[in-house]
Amino acid sequence: MHFRLIGNALGALIFFIGLSMLLPLGVSLIYAEGDAKAILISLSITTLSGLVLYGLTRGTVKEIGNKDGFVIVALGWISACLFGSLPYLFSGSLGGFTNCYFESASGFTTTGATIVNYIEELPHGILFWRSLTHWLGGMGIILLSLAILPFLGIGGMQLYRAEVPGPVMDKLAPRVRETAKTLWKVYVGISALEVVLLLLGGMGWFEALCHTFGTMATGGFSTRSASIGFYRSTYFEIIIIFFMLAAGTNFSLHYQFLKGEFSAFWRSAEFRFYIAVILTGITLITLNLRLGSHYDLSDSLRYASFQVSSIVTTTGYTTADFGSWPSLSQCLLLILMFVGGCAGSTGGSVKCLRNLLLLKQGYREIYRHIHPRAVVPIKLGGRVVPSEVMEGIWGFFLLYMFIFIVASIIMSVLGLDLISAIASVAASIGNVGPGLGSVGPSSNYADIPLIGKWVLTFCMLLGRLEIYTVIILLVPEFWRK
Amino acid sequence: MHFRLIGNALGALIFFIGLSMLLPLGVSLIYAEGDAKAILISLSITTLSGLVLYGLTRGTVKEIGNKDGFVIVALGWISACLFGSLPYLFSGSLGGFTNCYFESASGFTTTGATIVNYIEELPHGILFWRSLTHWLGGMGIILLSLAILPFLGIGGMQLYRAEVPGPVMDKLAPRVRETAKTLWKVYVGISALEVVLLLLGGMGWFEALCHTFGTMATGGFSTRSASIGFYRSTYFEIIIIFFMLAAGTNFSLHYQFLKGEFSAFWRSAEFRFYIAVILTGITLITLNLRLGSHYDLSDSLRYASFQVSSIVTTTGYTTADFGSWPSLSQCLLLILMFVGGCAGSTGGSVKCLRNLLLLKQGYREIYRHIHPRAVVPIKLGGRVVPSEVMEGIWGFFLLYMFIFIVASIIMSVLGLDLISAIASVAASIGNVGPGLGSVGPSSNYADIPLIGKWVLTFCMLLGRLEIYTVIILLVPEFWRK
Repeated sequence: MHFRLIGNALGALIFFIGLSMLLPLGVSLIYAEGDAKAILISLSITTLSGLVLYGLTRGTVKEIGNKDGFVIVALGWISACLFGSLPYLFSGSLGGFTNCYFESASGFTTTGATIVNYIEELPHGILFWRSLTHWLGGMGIILLSLAILPFLGIGGMQLYRAEVPGPVMDKLAPRVRETAKTLWKVYVGISALEVVLLLLGGMGWFEALCHTFGTMATGGFSTRSASIGFYRSTYFEIIIIFFMLAAGTNFSLHYQFLKGEFSAFWRSAEFRFYIAVILTGITLITLNLRLGSHYDLSDSLRYASFQVSSIVTTTGYTTADFGSWPSLSQCLLLILMFVGGCAGSTGGSVKCLRNLLLLKQGYREIYRHIHPRAVVPIKLGGRVVPSEVMEGIWGFFLLYMFIFIVASIIMSVLGLDLISAIASVAASIGNVGPGLGSVGPSSNYADIPLIGKWVLTFCMLLGRLEIYTVIILLVPEFWRK
Repeated sequence: MHFRLIGNALGALIFFIGLSMLLPLGVSLIYAEGDAKAILISLSITTLSGLVLYGLTRGTVKEIGNKDGFVIVALGWISACLFGSLPYLFSGSLGGFTNCYFESASGFTTTGATIVNYIEELPHGILFWRSLTHWLGGMGIILLSLAILPFLGIGGMQLYRAEVPGPVMDKLAPRVRETAKTLWKVYVGISALEVVLLLLGGMGWFEALCHTFGTMATGGFSTRSASIGFYRSTYFEIIIIFFMLAAGTNFSLHYQFLKGEFSAFWRSAEFRFYIAVILTGITLITLNLRLGSHYDLSDSLRYASFQVSSIVTTTGYTTADFGSWPSLSQCLLLILMFVGGCAGSTGGSVKCLRNLLLLKQGYREIYRHIHPRAVVPIKLGGRVVPSEVMEGIWGFFLLYMFIFIVASIIMSVLGLDLISAIASVAASIGNVGPGLGSVGPSSNYADIPLIGKWVLTFCMLLGRLEIYTVIILLVPEFWRK
């Protein structure tokens, strides 16, 4: 473990988080709603803390080890959430520290679960920061999943160094910067396009920016209590569906596409699976809504398309109160919370890649019993998936379900009914945001008991950092020499 | 595929099922409640069908192949359920064919889910047959899991040919008979002991026999609507807890124990895990019931001990309406439905052995990320578990969860609320019996829509026959030459 190096990286990160508060500061100065002071104090504390930590830990450059990587990633996110909660805390707009940390973690982990009861009453500067944390978190995740996790070998992520020959480089430390630069450009470019399209539809620049942040990070914070449903605009819904789906796609594919390989998307087995799941979900829920006489056919299709895209990509925007939909639709949405976006996207949850490989193994085992002597490797896009990678994926899936179960138990101990307990955890660990029952789209997380908020915050972090990165730090073995 | 041989085995099985109807026939003659005629007709049809099939398919003895094994097991259970439903059908006591087949399948798969509203009103002969199907099914399962499945390599079951050097022989066909004989003795012996102990406590011989059948098979059919709760007797509860736990234990361990290896139980890693899960469950639920002011401490402990033992062993007897317990207790019971008994017991569900190995792999993957270059095999009782076996277990677990999810969706399409839909499937595929919500202990499966009853019947069979045995027959690949 190289503590100086870890401190140095964290210092730089915290400094950068502090700098990014300049943007909400600008917004708050424009709107002049009295939140500028709180943001300025937060900005000062954060940049200074970052600088001090950076300065104190400067030293000779060393090779980053695996263990350092885990610590940097986990502590990086935890401290981003901590400093990110300062503007909420100093402005007094969200209540105590638990609420502020919950909202900040929900932002940086791109979850989008909120404890805010009256969103429209918050000052614009605070709202802007809230959405910006999504966007920063989303960029962090792309970098993490495409540049760092493959080297740490998390839950099969090493796999698609082979699967997608994108802008991923061969060595961790020296190339992270270059990978980051390329991916920033793609991320910023697509974001800019969404802003422009939302502006063209007549959305104000403030809301266009905030909703773009929420879309591209598959976050889900809105500037409206009724989320995207507020606008009652098919145009906005179509635009946001398109960009949610883009954000849930592996960014290496966008990179390849922009480089002129137009077949990149369709050649990816994971992308085909992702689209197939979404289309199936939309079809089933549309039918269920229509046959259950909930809406007419076009409205059924419209609401189902938006909600399925929002849940599968783990965004969490809503256009309807799906908590009042028929039992089947709710059940399907709950299950879709476990699908998630593609690996290498800003989407969370288990991820399509892993689900696809797990299903392939399920079929392989059936096949094996029919032909006991046959050797049947699991393939993805024509390539054989090594068995260590499969074991990593199984281990990930198991831990994910194990934590989901344990956390659901804790939430039900705290007094939530069974569906709310299950859905709150599924929506947190999957970085979705809204759940079902008492944490459904017509409600929020404000009334969850204090301990429950911390449990869910922990789940958001676990889910966002692919479980291992956090869990591993809790194992005594990790800290042994 | 050797169709003659398959037909021959099925013919013998059906004949035997028919013969076993002599027992309820005797009971119905004693009680003279008008059901003797229905049972006699059923007996005649069943034995005759068996004889005809057996006679038609006699031929040269051939080696049984793997595929034959799968077909015999699956069709064996399906036809046992079919002929077993005749006494219900002819006596007219359960309504139409769907109800009769559901109840018969629930019996032979040792599930114990019932569609009977007024159990006390059924004639004694029918009640006796209902409980006897449990006991026959339980014996079938021990034979299947200890003698047949290891050779078919189902979901890791090949493992414990090595793990438990019990009375299991090395070749399938010739030794099945010997294994069967030994296990019969153990099964009959333990059953006889339970009957005697229940009689000593003052239970009538009819109810003592029926409840023993339900216990030893981890079935759960009772002769009382209020199940074991009817007796309000700590003595009966303790006896039944003890025998449920025995029935949920690998019968090879009983065999070893009876041969004088008194440490056999404690040396088994699976048995230790099984006991640990049960003790943890009892502790948590006792605390929850006490702290939730549901009962006083001794009653909390009493009800929790019975219910946890009943659910983990997948028996399904009840002494209290756990559907009215606090959310946490219900949540825990639902999760315990996925644990199940030991492999090689009459208990159903995922089984302790698999759960234990899955957890070991989960920890192994964490360890691997800390020591990326370490080779860490998964061990059970000091022996390394081969990776094909682990893959088989993963495949099993995945299919189990996949079927659970799909069936839950179907049940919610049919109009069940989310909890009832989930619990009805968990209780059916896990061969538990009572679920939560509208299929909780204070209710039954009578009001489930027709299609739903067939879906649950299918789940019972799938769960009981370790998924693969049934699923494999539905894959076109299986039927190709």
